[in-house]
Amino acid sequence: MKIAISGKGGVGKTLLAALLSKIFAESGYSVLAIDADPDANLAATLGFPHPEKITPISEMRSLIEERTGTRPGQAASYFKLNPKVDDLPEKYAQKNDGIRLMVMGKIKRGGTGCYCPENSLLQALVTHSLLARDEVVILDMEAGIEHLGRATAKAVDKLIVVVEPGRRSVETAHKVSKLAQDIGLQNIAIVANKLRSQQDREFLISSLPGFKFLGFIPYDQAIVDADLANLSILDSSRQVVDEVRNIYQALLSTAKAPSKINQ
Amino acid sequence: MKIAISGKGGVGKTLLAALLSKIFAESGYSVLAIDADPDANLAATLGFPHPEKITPISEMRSLIEERTGTRPGQAASYFKLNPKVDDLPEKYAQKNDGIRLMVMGKIKRGGTGCYCPENSLLQALVTHSLLARDEVVILDMEAGIEHLGRATAKAVDKLIVVVEPGRRSVETAHKVSKLAQDIGLQNIAIVANKLRSQQDREFLISSLPGFKFLGFIPYDQAIVDADLANLSILDSSRQVVDEVRNIYQALLSTAKAPSKINQ
Repeated sequence: MKIAISGKGGVGKTLLAALLSKIFAESGYSVLAIDADPDANLAATLGFPHPEKITPISEMRSLIEERTGTRPGQAASYFKLNPKVDDLPEKYAQKNDGIRLMVMGKIKRGGTGCYCPENSLLQALVTHSLLARDEVVILDMEAGIEHLGRATAKAVDKLIVVVEPGRRSVETAHKVSKLAQDIGLQNIAIVANKLRSQQDREFLISSLPGFKFLGFIPYDQAIVDADLANLSILDSSRQVVDEVRNIYQALLSTAKAPSKINQ
Repeated sequence: MKIAISGKGGVGKTLLAALLSKIFAESGYSVLAIDADPDANLAATLGFPHPEKITPISEMRSLIEERTGTRPGQAASYFKLNPKVDDLPEKYAQKNDGIRLMVMGKIKRGGTGCYCPENSLLQALVTHSLLARDEVVILDMEAGIEHLGRATAKAVDKLIVVVEPGRRSVETAHKVSKLAQDIGLQNIAIVANKLRSQQDREFLISSLPGFKFLGFIPYDQAIVDADLANLSILDSSRQVVDEVRNIYQALLSTAKAPSKINQ
């Protein structure tokens, strides 16, 4: 089961990714969560201790050089486009509460244009995670699907686009949908988040005609309050967790789940 | 006067960039607004007609090839690192209500690693806009400062990091501040947005010790409602506009403004 989550910044992608990871893990599945959004902090949201100490893969300079043959930042004419990565999830994933987490980090763009070796390694790592692993992979992405391509599109069981009541998040959903079509990815669905009223729900449904809605998560001030008080937001709102459980059930009913760990 | 705006996705960077652009323009300054956040839509927020028809610079394939000597997507060993760009703001900026707008677009990362020519052109364009233009430049960025470097850091009169009451946006502010220090950029200040209470204000001040706060913008449901009703959000909240006027005054008092158009 491979789930990719996209949507405009601030709509709640990371909260959904964290809650789904937790629910899948508690249900007995092996879960690999991938933080591919440098603007997010999936480790902190998942309650990993000392998330600030996790080194993103893109900053592991000697690993990148070892695998691609090119030092990060070096303007090389050639480097390996398909570096070996299949051992990386085991070696470099952090583990907590039954969830393994890989933090991809940011592609740094410097004055010389761009640094390709990091890019090449991250791309290969996402491709491997989606194509070759028999587990639940949850990919928390930016406001696009740049980690996906034609080769990986078929492996994604569901591309979830999170929206909130607001035009910009709807525009991003349309943009992501267009990009998904371009690479042949059809399993796309919307999760509406931060709903304050029936009107919010109707606004989103009417703004996204033809889209399948996988769930409607209510706004809950308890999540904001828990965050400000530095408490776990994953347990702070019963109604939010209940709705994400419904989304989990909907995912299970539409896609083939991998074997559970203890079966 | 060169103002760069960063912060976590969803905190309100684009609203601040749009309101500041409008206030500077109404005050008689020549304003160049740069949308460097593909997850934003500065054109729509500024009320440009048909923002969906604006082609981002990164998608102008023949322009990129003409200026860099390399076709986008081509795996070239060599391309121009300093393409000619000084004529581009005049040729490719959109104009509306006295504001010129350039939409940079997204660096596309494909299966082959990365596309360098677009990157090179965008980088040169930002550098030119910050270093060589005697006008008000307002740069709406992503949750980082990747468009800036050592060469441009000194030209930025103020790097504004927008935060909201929430830990992730505070973390992003700390991260952006660290990146700014790395390139020698010291003129950094915080704008707090979406404040609902005195506690929200105190949370942000205590979470960002040592930071200078340039303004405190209240949460106003009128902005959300105007957005959902497809009305201009720039005029929807008097209290928000008033506070951004204060921020404008604070910017004028701390940095050298260019000549006004009609002086």
